Amino acid sequence: MAETKPLRFAVLVGSLRKGSLNAAIARALPALAPADVTIAPLGSVGDFPLYNHALQEEKGFPPAVTAMAEAIRAADGVIFVTPEYNHSVPGVLKNAIDWLSRLPNQPFAGKPIAIESASPSLRAQLHLRHVFVRG
Amino acid sequence: MAETKPLRFAVLVGSLRKGSLNAAIARALPALAPADVTIAPLGSVGDFPLYNHALQEEKGFPPAVTAMAEAIRAADGVIFVTPEYNHSVPGVLKNAIDWLSRLPNQPFAGKPIAIESASPSLRAQLHLRHVFVRG
Repeated sequence: MAETKPLRFAVLVGSLRKGSLNAAIARALPALAPADVTIAPLGSVGDFPLYNHALQEEKGFPPAVTAMAEAIRAADGVIFVTPEYNHSVPGVLKNAIDWLSRLPNQPFAGKPIAIESASPSLRAQLHLRHVFVRG
Repeated sequence: MAETKPLRFAVLVGSLRKGSLNAAIARALPALAPADVTIAPLGSVGDFPLYNHALQEEKGFPPAVTAMAEAIRAADGVIFVTPEYNHSVPGVLKNAIDWLSRLPNQPFAGKPIAIESASPSLRAQLHLRHVFVRG
């Protein structure tokens, strides 16, 4: 039998709340993965500063941003597990995406993305889709 | 002639970039207002920490949040002047809205909102509309 390389997914949580239901879902995912799939958490979007383009140009990308970008590049796909805040993507998650999107070697390029949520509404997911599906 | 109370608008900028075109638009607005309208800037969304519900419950609302909420309550309407980041609302602006939306005496309640942007696209404006128009 040919050896197949396991699929590696990286998980990003859209809430900083201790006790977040979405964080709990994210923590449950690795154990639920089939044998040929690995699921590993990314760092916290809470380690990112507020996005400021001038700051980026003056001081470069913060270490938390470049480290998460490396982990995303190394993954075969990204799973977002996020609550919905005010009928849209939490600002803290969008802020992380805004930072990551500015990197020259785009970590999300060609990367399949899945979205999960403990929220009963679908608008955060719809807006995330708008963010990632261009045109 | 009866004296009429001037209409007071508060302006919130969605970019932290020094030299932001949207910040420039916001700065130009007060001088363009007609005689019976005043337009005043709100504080910077850059003074808000990343939203964390647990933090809010433990330590309460940060002073930058409560001060901006008071200024919004005192206004007759809010004008957002914001760029579009990744086909949506900048994370830094959404983060500010997420904080403000948690206050018990809701500062945006019943408040007319206008949206302006130096961006050629309309998706940030569409998503902001989704945020503020419920249901």
